[in-house]
Amino acid sequence: MWTTLSFTLTVLSLVLLSCPSSDSSRILVVPVDGSHWLNMEHILRKLHSRGHEITVLRSAKSWYIPENSTVYTSINIRMLEDEEDLEVYNRMLLDVIECRKKSRFIRSFCQQYEITKLLGKGHEILANSAALLLDDPVFMKKMHDAQFNLMLTDPGMPIGVILGSYLKLPTVFNVRWINNGESHFAMAPSPASYIPISGTELTDKMDFVDRVKNVLFYIYSQTELQFLIYPAYSNLMERHFPPGTDLLSLELSADIWLVRADFVFEFPRPTMPNVVYIGGFQCQEPSPLPNDLQTFVESSGDHGVIIMSLGTFVSALPRKATEAIAAAFAELPQKVIWKYIGQQPTTLGNNTLLVKWLPQKDLLGHPKTRAFVAHGGTNGMYEAIYHGVPVVGLPLLFDQFDNVVRLKERGAARIVEAKSITKESFLEAVKDVVENPSYRENVQRLSRLHRDTPMSPMDTALFWIEYVIRNKGAPHLRAVGYSLPWYSYFCLDVAAFLLVILVALVCKKQQQKNKKKNNKKTLK
Amino acid sequence: MWTTLSFTLTVLSLVLLSCPSSDSSRILVVPVDGSHWLNMEHILRKLHSRGHEITVLRSAKSWYIPENSTVYTSINIRMLEDEEDLEVYNRMLLDVIECRKKSRFIRSFCQQYEITKLLGKGHEILANSAALLLDDPVFMKKMHDAQFNLMLTDPGMPIGVILGSYLKLPTVFNVRWINNGESHFAMAPSPASYIPISGTELTDKMDFVDRVKNVLFYIYSQTELQFLIYPAYSNLMERHFPPGTDLLSLELSADIWLVRADFVFEFPRPTMPNVVYIGGFQCQEPSPLPNDLQTFVESSGDHGVIIMSLGTFVSALPRKATEAIAAAFAELPQKVIWKYIGQQPTTLGNNTLLVKWLPQKDLLGHPKTRAFVAHGGTNGMYEAIYHGVPVVGLPLLFDQFDNVVRLKERGAARIVEAKSITKESFLEAVKDVVENPSYRENVQRLSRLHRDTPMSPMDTALFWIEYVIRNKGAPHLRAVGYSLPWYSYFCLDVAAFLLVILVALVCKKQQQKNKKKNNKKTLK
Repeated sequence: MWTTLSFTLTVLSLVLLSCPSSDSSRILVVPVDGSHWLNMEHILRKLHSRGHEITVLRSAKSWYIPENSTVYTSINIRMLEDEEDLEVYNRMLLDVIECRKKSRFIRSFCQQYEITKLLGKGHEILANSAALLLDDPVFMKKMHDAQFNLMLTDPGMPIGVILGSYLKLPTVFNVRWINNGESHFAMAPSPASYIPISGTELTDKMDFVDRVKNVLFYIYSQTELQFLIYPAYSNLMERHFPPGTDLLSLELSADIWLVRADFVFEFPRPTMPNVVYIGGFQCQEPSPLPNDLQTFVESSGDHGVIIMSLGTFVSALPRKATEAIAAAFAELPQKVIWKYIGQQPTTLGNNTLLVKWLPQKDLLGHPKTRAFVAHGGTNGMYEAIYHGVPVVGLPLLFDQFDNVVRLKERGAARIVEAKSITKESFLEAVKDVVENPSYRENVQRLSRLHRDTPMSPMDTALFWIEYVIRNKGAPHLRAVGYSLPWYSYFCLDVAAFLLVILVALVCKKQQQKNKKKNNKKTLK
Repeated sequence: MWTTLSFTLTVLSLVLLSCPSSDSSRILVVPVDGSHWLNMEHILRKLHSRGHEITVLRSAKSWYIPENSTVYTSINIRMLEDEEDLEVYNRMLLDVIECRKKSRFIRSFCQQYEITKLLGKGHEILANSAALLLDDPVFMKKMHDAQFNLMLTDPGMPIGVILGSYLKLPTVFNVRWINNGESHFAMAPSPASYIPISGTELTDKMDFVDRVKNVLFYIYSQTELQFLIYPAYSNLMERHFPPGTDLLSLELSADIWLVRADFVFEFPRPTMPNVVYIGGFQCQEPSPLPNDLQTFVESSGDHGVIIMSLGTFVSALPRKATEAIAAAFAELPQKVIWKYIGQQPTTLGNNTLLVKWLPQKDLLGHPKTRAFVAHGGTNGMYEAIYHGVPVVGLPLLFDQFDNVVRLKERGAARIVEAKSITKESFLEAVKDVVENPSYRENVQRLSRLHRDTPMSPMDTALFWIEYVIRNKGAPHLRAVGYSLPWYSYFCLDVAAFLLVILVALVCKKQQQKNKKKNNKKTLK
């Protein structure tokens, strides 16, 4: 059965991807910079190969999004930018490490507060940048004249959402984060009883205390939305959109949400008809390693290798932690390949190779790879699942804590805390993940389930993007509930009305009773 | 783009359907009789052609489910049966026609009460029939020994749900109705503010009065569940399942819900990760018509033909209604093919052909067909959408009222009331649907959207059935919320706790204030 399906899928993929689309369409893309761009670029390449004309709006100062590309035409836009750089995150990391010394209950709030400080300023900058565009008649005429068929955007930063709504373009989101949480919180019912709010590090199985924390966190995040994030855009909304429009209503008018999630990783939860899951769409089969790496990996013998990458943050790990990690690695029988930038640890063993960059998918897909030491970024977690490699999570910031909790809950990861890392604790965790077969078995089961789909996540993404183009939107998949005020959505007006009727009926009955009594008294 | 996809889908379908599955599996099927069986049988044929061994449990007295088949082995079970027959529905039809003379607000409650009367008795019979099976050691040993890999059942009648849970089999539902409503109400959040409760004839766009009605109907249907339906099974649950088990918890333990719905027809609403939509999976391209029908159809010239079928109920339509319909048809320039059993109407025109049976899909798929006069059964509605034929709805019972409302809301149908049908009103409605091009345009747009999927609904059903077999279930897609008590699910316990804390804090503050005041007074 399985082989039939595999064959089918291969045929499907080949057919889908080799044929350029017959009618060309014009797609306007507003990506989010940084690691989000890697995701978006991957889709753009495929869309380009299928004959679509792609225009990318990029900040003139962007480091990640190339100005010149064979895949797309870019338009430089003026983005008000923060003087933010990696230093912001490095400083934040130290604050977060302080937070993590607090109790389990408190630390999530402490960490979220660190994020709140960034969010306020960030959204103000984004709103002003969007206003610069809408207020620029030359730019807007160019946009109108281009007659785009689709807005494809990552609403993690809402400039694309605002511009697409203003231009009344059918819209597809390539999304995982929106506003201040995971995308479902904006568009699907999310009972706080079993759906952990982003940032809580809770699972879907919560005891009473967990649920108290989750509800309080829900209140915190709603407060953040209502008093910090949405108001940042209110001036822009008033000037350019019909009365009553807010950022959320623009977001909810998207036609299709391509959500970068898969329920082998996310906890199962309510979803909506216009949500399509493409988690892991960036994963690919490994290519052969460069010669030097291949020689190094092969030299590991039966023990195999361990891969470590913490993204761009490693230079900010406290020196003590780096030394502890290096010392622990030195005691392992495995070889280690460590993506590392900065001063070489004094405790580095002969078995450990420091590299400035590593071909992550090719190493994770290599049969000799035994474990992946990672900070818990979403892309890395899906790659670990795709290639079936167990994880030692060393989460540092943002969603990384939640991400590694998801893999741990499924028995596919151990978590090590940066705040208290020692050679011993790290060594014990790595040894456990490498030597205890359950981690490997669990992640490989996840891998089988993740790959067991009628269509690959990338082909699914392409299908729905083209679906929205050829059908000029997908309003029949959008719930009417999105346009209701909150008191109507929850039927609080109806409840109040029924309560009044009930009270009136009870009072009337009481009156009649009293009357009867009085009549009786009179008769007496 | 579209042609590429079509080609892909064809290749996919051919590959999927031509290859028998490599590992055979044993599937236990508990269908629902009647029109539900037609749906199930269609899937069973495909599963058989893919090499699965199928065992069907049927009532020894079943009229619809053949005992002997080349597709499956059947096992006769003793079903306690009602003396119910078509007469029950005929009597009910008259009661429902009475209901429909009441106001829009009231009539839904009146009709639902007619259904309630059937439901109570029906579920008692079903519970006792299920008990007969579980209490029969010879039958149960046979079931255990057969080592089935899957329970495939229509939970419209829950014998398969109960037996599958008892045997601890991975379970797939082929479902549209469960307990007393459309299947989503049992397993997905369903805000009453925009999701019309089954039986209300409301759409997703409700004004305040509509929402009051919907909330009251919600309360009615919950009462029916809690005090009529679930209690019917409580004795069975106590004797055969762990404490705390009820019918709902067994239903919610299904691995995959293949829901016979599509959002070109249903209003968009929250859904769950283990729900897969297969609405219209029974639809097929038309075959050529039998010679006599083909001649009749061709003789209609450019005017075309109108098809009428009211399922098995037409003999029960009041004589007056039948005469009015026949008289209206007689005035049309179209030819009419009418599935009709009973005494020939005196007003029958020369253009109208009465038949005892008609090849519905072949007629609906014929280019000369202009309109479909139908009672609004789900299968017929999906066939109308699939073939792009506008509908004149003449709903009589059950979900038919809701079904035609859905097509009307999308501009693809007119509704005629059986309670007040006259020649004039019927003629006006049919003429409107045939002559006003908007009905045809709308239903053809629905048809395009319905067919615009990465995989056909039938292939989707087969994929997920085999998915559950090869993965031995799909618990990772099942939400934890299903196992929470209702007060925890809605966080009412947490709300109460937080309220207590808040009150305590306020009281304490007040006390301190008073103390201060007193101290001040003392000082004075």
